[in-house]
Amino acid sequence: MIADAQALTDNIDNPEKVRQNIIEVALDYLACGLDSTKSTLFVQSQISELFELSFYYMNLVTVSRLQRNPTIKMEIKMRNFGKNIPVGFFTYPISQAADITAFKATTVPVGEDQLPMIELTKEIVRKFNSLYGKVLVEPEALLPDNKACQRLPGIDGKSKMSKSLNNCIYLSDTADEVKKKVMNMYTDPNHLRVEDPGNVEGNPVFTYLDAFCKNEHFSRYFPEYNNLDELKEHYTKGGLGDVKVKKFLNAILQEELEPIRKRRAEFAKDIPEVYNILKKGNYMAREVAANTLAEVKSAMKINYF
Amino acid sequence: MIADAQALTDNIDNPEKVRQNIIEVALDYLACGLDSTKSTLFVQSQISELFELSFYYMNLVTVSRLQRNPTIKMEIKMRNFGKNIPVGFFTYPISQAADITAFKATTVPVGEDQLPMIELTKEIVRKFNSLYGKVLVEPEALLPDNKACQRLPGIDGKSKMSKSLNNCIYLSDTADEVKKKVMNMYTDPNHLRVEDPGNVEGNPVFTYLDAFCKNEHFSRYFPEYNNLDELKEHYTKGGLGDVKVKKFLNAILQEELEPIRKRRAEFAKDIPEVYNILKKGNYMAREVAANTLAEVKSAMKINYF
Repeated sequence: MIADAQALTDNIDNPEKVRQNIIEVALDYLACGLDSTKSTLFVQSQISELFELSFYYMNLVTVSRLQRNPTIKMEIKMRNFGKNIPVGFFTYPISQAADITAFKATTVPVGEDQLPMIELTKEIVRKFNSLYGKVLVEPEALLPDNKACQRLPGIDGKSKMSKSLNNCIYLSDTADEVKKKVMNMYTDPNHLRVEDPGNVEGNPVFTYLDAFCKNEHFSRYFPEYNNLDELKEHYTKGGLGDVKVKKFLNAILQEELEPIRKRRAEFAKDIPEVYNILKKGNYMAREVAANTLAEVKSAMKINYF
Repeated sequence: MIADAQALTDNIDNPEKVRQNIIEVALDYLACGLDSTKSTLFVQSQISELFELSFYYMNLVTVSRLQRNPTIKMEIKMRNFGKNIPVGFFTYPISQAADITAFKATTVPVGEDQLPMIELTKEIVRKFNSLYGKVLVEPEALLPDNKACQRLPGIDGKSKMSKSLNNCIYLSDTADEVKKKVMNMYTDPNHLRVEDPGNVEGNPVFTYLDAFCKNEHFSRYFPEYNNLDELKEHYTKGGLGDVKVKKFLNAILQEELEPIRKRRAEFAKDIPEVYNILKKGNYMAREVAANTLAEVKSAMKINYF
């Protein structure tokens, strides 16, 4: 799903940006290998049923329950909303519950920061099913096995990547842009000289290596070491400069990103076809969501006609 | 509009009640003379577009703005929600803004307690139009000229009539039920004996007379007085018993309610036909709401396909 309606909750004065991002996200999905013949790619705002489900789920959640959501708290802080939190932003975990349950998803692959949303979704499902009968499916969160992938920090070392903070590496970035971003990446601020001991904890360069580095990368790009443990040991002891480590990370990321970038460029050549894929996806998603909504309304006894 | 979806915001565990009330409200509307060939009678939950509009309007209102709504504050207190306010209840003024603006209503006949809702609707319209261009229409509230009709109190003297407080006279009440309710009506608690001076302020018996009594009623039912001022004067001075005043009020209400009751009984003989009226209304309402939603989404640039 491309969550354009959710994007509007904190971009109300910038709909043109949201509009342009639709196609960017679609290209990202396709470039990463989502196969539109197997996965349904669709656009949130085109599935009316999701809004209707959200509306009914809102009766099953209290205001104070939403206020306790740690991710929402953090994001409110990050966006400097202060007291002026838009209601749409405040309630977006409920809308996410609609996005998940409309399709009776059993498993939702998420980052660690999205665990509170899955928790709320489960609560909504339990409450709905206990009030109206077993209609909805309780989803399970699926976290990456690799801890470093559970929440990849921003390249500025901030805990959350965010377009508004401009601290992400994009799948659409050119090789040069990726290199520039890696070389400018936040690292241990106390590791001033090569000979200084360095810290790998909370150091995004090493977190990214934790996420993406495999042993085979060493023989290809950094034969002085056999594995990441050795590299970390040297860095921690002192005598290993940041530039060398960043160059290694860059080589790994380029290897990872190159085929994605190529596929992205291929799909980008025929944007009307990408819109066609989404259009077809919308149609299919709507059919499923409409079925769920009909079951929901029937369980709630608001199927009068 | 029959606001069944709104009714669910504080009746989640009682959908059967909401379901039954649909037909009751429809009969009330028809009995009072709403002509389905001139007015579109429809059911809120059947107009999906309203939920979608609500969703987008939620981005235009802040949480603290909702918290300042005096009617919501009062109703939260009345319903003993405490800290457990359902989100759907908290946000219902936004949903009302959708109900109004979906049909580009210019004038909304309301009771005084609904003025904060119209105010919020105006704010939403202004904000939407200033962000995305002039699409929505700013509605004006229409209050009854007669002050007593702007907010008729409950028969228990509480400021708000409410089904949950069981302090209302229903259009479907029999003549006997109405009489019983009037004779049990809260009145001046210090007016213990006939000769005691009585208070007409905050006395629902007199507020109902202010709302319904015309001079002509005196010649028919209470020829000892020429008008309501004379009656009030006597009551205030002392020497006029509550029972006499209540009997007078009962006579007036019976005269007002009798034709409504008759029409209600007529319509109630053919419930499938009432459902047909609503079904036709839903169809018409949906067409108008869908047009507005299309304009809204196009203004917000989320019309990709």
